[in-house]
Amino acid sequence: MLFSRQLARRPLIRAPRRWTHSPAALAGLKSVTEDDLVHFAHFLPPTSIVSTLSPSAAPSSELESFNNDWMNKYHGRSTTVLKPRTTEEVSKIVKWCNERRIGIVPQGGNTGLVGGSVPIRDELILSLSNMSKIRSFDDVSGILVADAGCVLQSLTDYLAPHNHIVPLDLGAKGSCQIGGNVSTNAGGLRLLRYGSLHGSVLGLEVVLPDGTILDQLTTLRKDNTGYDLKQLFIGAEGTLGIVTGVSILAAPAPQASNNVMLALPKFENVLPLYKETKRQLSEILSAFEFMDRTVYDLAVKHGQGRALNPEDVEGAECFVLVETSGGKREHDEQKLNSLLESLMEADVPLINTGVIATSPAQFSSLWAIREGLTEAVSKEGKAYKYDISVPLYKFQEVVDKTKNHLQEKGLLHEDAVKYVVGYGHVGDGNLHLNVVAAAYTPEIEAALEPFVYELVASYKGSISAEHGIGAMKTHALKYSKNETSIEWMKKIKALFDPNGIMNPGKVLP
Amino acid sequence: MLFSRQLARRPLIRAPRRWTHSPAALAGLKSVTEDDLVHFAHFLPPTSIVSTLSPSAAPSSELESFNNDWMNKYHGRSTTVLKPRTTEEVSKIVKWCNERRIGIVPQGGNTGLVGGSVPIRDELILSLSNMSKIRSFDDVSGILVADAGCVLQSLTDYLAPHNHIVPLDLGAKGSCQIGGNVSTNAGGLRLLRYGSLHGSVLGLEVVLPDGTILDQLTTLRKDNTGYDLKQLFIGAEGTLGIVTGVSILAAPAPQASNNVMLALPKFENVLPLYKETKRQLSEILSAFEFMDRTVYDLAVKHGQGRALNPEDVEGAECFVLVETSGGKREHDEQKLNSLLESLMEADVPLINTGVIATSPAQFSSLWAIREGLTEAVSKEGKAYKYDISVPLYKFQEVVDKTKNHLQEKGLLHEDAVKYVVGYGHVGDGNLHLNVVAAAYTPEIEAALEPFVYELVASYKGSISAEHGIGAMKTHALKYSKNETSIEWMKKIKALFDPNGIMNPGKVLP
Repeated sequence: MLFSRQLARRPLIRAPRRWTHSPAALAGLKSVTEDDLVHFAHFLPPTSIVSTLSPSAAPSSELESFNNDWMNKYHGRSTTVLKPRTTEEVSKIVKWCNERRIGIVPQGGNTGLVGGSVPIRDELILSLSNMSKIRSFDDVSGILVADAGCVLQSLTDYLAPHNHIVPLDLGAKGSCQIGGNVSTNAGGLRLLRYGSLHGSVLGLEVVLPDGTILDQLTTLRKDNTGYDLKQLFIGAEGTLGIVTGVSILAAPAPQASNNVMLALPKFENVLPLYKETKRQLSEILSAFEFMDRTVYDLAVKHGQGRALNPEDVEGAECFVLVETSGGKREHDEQKLNSLLESLMEADVPLINTGVIATSPAQFSSLWAIREGLTEAVSKEGKAYKYDISVPLYKFQEVVDKTKNHLQEKGLLHEDAVKYVVGYGHVGDGNLHLNVVAAAYTPEIEAALEPFVYELVASYKGSISAEHGIGAMKTHALKYSKNETSIEWMKKIKALFDPNGIMNPGKVLP
Repeated sequence: MLFSRQLARRPLIRAPRRWTHSPAALAGLKSVTEDDLVHFAHFLPPTSIVSTLSPSAAPSSELESFNNDWMNKYHGRSTTVLKPRTTEEVSKIVKWCNERRIGIVPQGGNTGLVGGSVPIRDELILSLSNMSKIRSFDDVSGILVADAGCVLQSLTDYLAPHNHIVPLDLGAKGSCQIGGNVSTNAGGLRLLRYGSLHGSVLGLEVVLPDGTILDQLTTLRKDNTGYDLKQLFIGAEGTLGIVTGVSILAAPAPQASNNVMLALPKFENVLPLYKETKRQLSEILSAFEFMDRTVYDLAVKHGQGRALNPEDVEGAECFVLVETSGGKREHDEQKLNSLLESLMEADVPLINTGVIATSPAQFSSLWAIREGLTEAVSKEGKAYKYDISVPLYKFQEVVDKTKNHLQEKGLLHEDAVKYVVGYGHVGDGNLHLNVVAAAYTPEIEAALEPFVYELVASYKGSISAEHGIGAMKTHALKYSKNETSIEWMKKIKALFDPNGIMNPGKVLP
């Protein structure tokens, strides 16, 4: 999902907690004491220790940005943040915490959306932000090895002169860290083209819950020597260990990018359009983003740009943003133009109209509509956000059924739910379902949950396509994972983290 | 690696075993008895049971193709092959074997190169060949769900009219099964373009060693709900459970394919050439295969095709086969032609000469050289084959150092080692090092091992880039995986398979 960085800069407003946690997971865990700080001071410099405890005695305001997430929805009460500079320091901290039974929350850029990176109680926060060195880059193979604390944008900037890109892009790139991206298996905007991190991450260095350093930081594209353990840490949200280093396959930078916004008369046309687009654009298709009419209109209303003239889009039921990225501008443009010609000349046209970006500014302004949806929605009211995977042809049905359900409950009016909208990554089967209400109320929440989760489960979908489980959705995991899978997840957790110190209360119910 | 299907059809010749196994892993395991067969007959039809025991009493010749690998290098002595038709039948078999402590070897097409799919002793062979149904295909998302026993070629044939391809191709495609491909994390010819199975496999159905069916057969491109357990089974070579169903993301079929064979004056030019090719061909580059001069000459000598005129390749130190696959023929040809022009016109040329295929027949004949290397080598003598990953710029060094080492040992002459050759997938960092000898001798083997493994380890390489560990390389695992990694692999094995019944003696030392 994209969220705009403007949102991240808003002042923190205390909002009521809307999630439940599992205190059971934290029951046996100890708080950090002054004695612990004395121990940490043996191998960490004062600048690596931020604590309200003596002898540091920092004001609690210094911990605010670590204890609260950017949406200000999840609030921890940690007394102590440690910022190790090396993997060995991480190992020493973790070893001590494991012996002392102190819970640890690994924290990257703290840009997650499900409360995975802030403490539930007063767990120690281990920030990776001081580990931000690029360890190596091979511009022949494209293999980049970096500390986990490298900010995504800084990697992008580093690779640009080498004519490569990180195979991952998301709205939070200015703050999020590669270790956090890996730990949450971040999806984002380039997944359609470059695939998931399970494919592009080649190796990891992980500090396990007992302090052992598991070095699988290979720089090999292929290595078939036994179990691919690193995969377990991709998407484990820090509950199995702390990712400290990442080896990732960077992609050659595309030489040209184009985009086009298309207006469609009806939702049923989205899938034939996707098929035709895939067929004609083939390897240069890099994004195929869907927006329903309601959310498009909200974006226009709130000044997120205007792609098409109002009279041209009369009767359009939804919109699609198509992006190409390729190696040769004239070839890409030819492919895109011939796609558009064939669409416009079809006997039964799939689209009403469309606009193609002819300058970098127009390219950005088309993306601005898509990227501005979250902000437009938030200006309209309080949004219940569901990030789900469902079969592509069910996108509209999910939106419609949710809307009907709310109507049946008498909740679809100006003072309750104002809009039910859908947008997302068609290519990835990933729908962002947003229910925009006048206010967060228990009544609406009860109408939505478990309704939405059950709906998703009925399509054999995922209740979290890319945001993860964090603290927010542990109770809903059962809608996407069967009992056997959850049981095995628990066994894996118990094997790696028998004392339950790693990001306690997250992921598992 | 490619191996030609002609080889697979050769009559079996008993060769001395050149590998050691770990009988310890089999120590506590029981043999199949007639009572077991009675039990299996309760839920399996007679056609699903092939056994030399009563009441089946099949001649042992019927088990020959199951007990021996296609190279006739590994020989099992199993009495019984079961061919279940459903996942439930697999589950019942496994549950029984787990209770009775009977070792199981899951077997797909039995095309592996490291003895992973034949018994070490008399383990029960569970053949997936009767599970060969395609369960579903969605031509919008490209997601294919198939039984594990589907032969790779049959999936390719099924997808062709839907304009899709399996994101995997290898020489054994006429026999190998998708479940075996997944279990061995097969690499092959399309990896450069479509990435590894860790990225393209979306879901698996696995029968665990206690008979539990782990259903993670999702058809979702994105699902961030907890640990990605299926990844553990990709490349586990059947030691953690039996893959019975696979969900995989098929790729849109390319509309055009081209290739070109290039002769290079020296190895040092391979990497600049690779960089330039990647830059100019970008997203349409689908293969970049390296051959050293010696192996190229062997291919020519043994009639595997002749790409270039002898006088044109005088002085060429090595060769590269470049393939493109793209969505529009004229665009692809333009890109390839302008690459070749820039290569020919360079002030300091990277290549001596090259030949571009201008017909499907020429396209095939250029590939025939590359695909014929294994056969050419085998016609020349007995080959010690190493399938390794090393940094790209070390390819030639590995070949040269191995050659020098053999020379120092006095083993480089007509009656001992005749050739040391290298070829492989530059784009994947995967070198096939072949040492061609007059005969397999303990002296040569002692000179090569652990020398080659230590050499690979010194580059932080992999001793098995794509072939796996199987029974052949368990003793050498330590050269590619550190102690911590092996220890954790053992813990994972013990967690899933506490009785050690699943493909015993394979992968782990």
